Amino acid sequence: MKTNTQVKLAKRPVGLPDQSIWTIEKNPLPVPKEGEVLIRTIYVSLDPAMRGWLNDQKSYVPPVQIGAVMRAGMLGQVVESNNPNFQVGDHVTGWTGVQEYAVSSEPDIMKVDPNLIPLPSYLGVMGMPGLTAYFGLLEVGKPKAGETVLVSGAAGAVGSVAGQIAKIKKCRAVGIAGGAEKCRYLLEELGFDAAIDYKNENVFKALKKTCPDGVDVYFDNVGGEILDLALTQINLHARIPICGAISQYNRSDALKGPSNYLSLLVNRARMEGFIVFDFQKNYPQAIREMAQWIAAGKLKSKEYVVEGIENFHSAFLRLFSGEKLGKLILKVG
Amino acid sequence: MKTNTQVKLAKRPVGLPDQSIWTIEKNPLPVPKEGEVLIRTIYVSLDPAMRGWLNDQKSYVPPVQIGAVMRAGMLGQVVESNNPNFQVGDHVTGWTGVQEYAVSSEPDIMKVDPNLIPLPSYLGVMGMPGLTAYFGLLEVGKPKAGETVLVSGAAGAVGSVAGQIAKIKKCRAVGIAGGAEKCRYLLEELGFDAAIDYKNENVFKALKKTCPDGVDVYFDNVGGEILDLALTQINLHARIPICGAISQYNRSDALKGPSNYLSLLVNRARMEGFIVFDFQKNYPQAIREMAQWIAAGKLKSKEYVVEGIENFHSAFLRLFSGEKLGKLILKVG
Repeated sequence: MKTNTQVKLAKRPVGLPDQSIWTIEKNPLPVPKEGEVLIRTIYVSLDPAMRGWLNDQKSYVPPVQIGAVMRAGMLGQVVESNNPNFQVGDHVTGWTGVQEYAVSSEPDIMKVDPNLIPLPSYLGVMGMPGLTAYFGLLEVGKPKAGETVLVSGAAGAVGSVAGQIAKIKKCRAVGIAGGAEKCRYLLEELGFDAAIDYKNENVFKALKKTCPDGVDVYFDNVGGEILDLALTQINLHARIPICGAISQYNRSDALKGPSNYLSLLVNRARMEGFIVFDFQKNYPQAIREMAQWIAAGKLKSKEYVVEGIENFHSAFLRLFSGEKLGKLILKVG
Repeated sequence: MKTNTQVKLAKRPVGLPDQSIWTIEKNPLPVPKEGEVLIRTIYVSLDPAMRGWLNDQKSYVPPVQIGAVMRAGMLGQVVESNNPNFQVGDHVTGWTGVQEYAVSSEPDIMKVDPNLIPLPSYLGVMGMPGLTAYFGLLEVGKPKAGETVLVSGAAGAVGSVAGQIAKIKKCRAVGIAGGAEKCRYLLEELGFDAAIDYKNENVFKALKKTCPDGVDVYFDNVGGEILDLALTQINLHARIPICGAISQYNRSDALKGPSNYLSLLVNRARMEGFIVFDFQKNYPQAIREMAQWIAAGKLKSKEYVVEGIENFHSAFLRLFSGEKLGKLILKVG
């Protein structure tokens, strides 16, 4: 008899999560009701935002409850259907979390075409991370041709797309990433104009060198020291889309605020947060445009796939250690 | 023979300025050239921004140079004129600094009507502070009727105007100020809906109580802890015009960045700096509108006048100690 392996939240983490915050359970398969389908999870998306969902605090989505299956984006296949809109074998995406099987129905799941792009890309460049980059850069950052766009976490799922879209919009794209391999990837594979290796370079000096005309848009995925240094280099009327702050997510004390925020005043600049879900009504148009860029070879992506639901925790930690290149994905089925 | 007492910058301060950073000199009166006028200073404007101008760093205006007359807004009277557009006796405003006499000409000085409003108001509600409040609130904060507008430094020259304009625009205005007298002034004289005495109240609890529907616009004059607490109370799509950070200006170490800035992300909110000078082309329209509000009794102001150019330093320190109510002005002549 088949079982459903599920990763559930056992307790709330303080600082960097350890294995003890999860329980791994084997439960009976759920049974789809009328109108529902049973989905076999193939890929689970691992995203920095998941760390925030573990904290018991008011945010843009409720925290994951203790005892609940860990929330995550998923790509899977319909294995049983009580819904005429879904056939067995259809591929779908949704938010059914870190488990081998799940029951769901519309509008929580969406069919995707496995022949258009590789399946994992539906969780990366064509999924939430790609859309986050698209709307954060274009709607909040509003880059103009010729401007300098600085991106942190630039080799990651969101940053790599933000930088490439900056190039498509005829901006100078400068990426900050950790390590020589990621920087090489930005320059040689993704076409960034410059890359800063924050693990091996003096970031302040490197910003001066790689952004000689200052920074017009700083797309921030990391917060902390790098945000503070970027603030010293912004131009008049600069825009700083706040996408995330991965350097700060595992702090157990108060996070580091940007000491140099008065640079916003001096430069009449703007720091603005955004959440991709707010742009939902424009997803189809964004996906269409990004699919064209992918087809034209202008938008590339890489996925870093870890196998086995039992490796969820160690895979999850790679988000924070940076030991991965591109979009981090857990292969479950 | 008349002399010109001038306050000059002798050296750059570290932390809270002490008297030794200034030299007071008595020099011969300057002589106006063709097209110029000689002005006798009556009032000097004392503004928190002056502290920033003492630091040797890139900003929206160059720092005051060592040995130069301290930069400041001024209202004075023409005592000698080589310019047909100015008569002896005309009242003018300009940026001639902390000295008894100065030579200037158009476009650096502007005539004002002494019969329209009290002279000191040209340095307050109808001067740079009033315009700062007007544009910062309306153009950056963009308050909508029914929204909650929170103002820090609310009894000061800028904050008091920002709060009153919020009321004129049919918002709920909540002010933060130091001490019972200032809070009483906000409530009883200026018509704020609520006041928080940060020196004697738990600001977090007071924010919860006075802003039960959250904060839509936070007009920040102070930075530091209060900015951090305000960030915990902002609503979706809130706007935070960054006008100043007086709590931080005299720090000799790195200033305190807002630890809670990720509230911008969660709430899709915006923190934006501005400088009043950017709105120069709209000054006439703003002054017209504010003059109507003053005439209609909707916009009130108070000036706190300290007498004697020799008291410049002790008067200047009141900006930071808060020992004044309303717009701080030094009476020179």
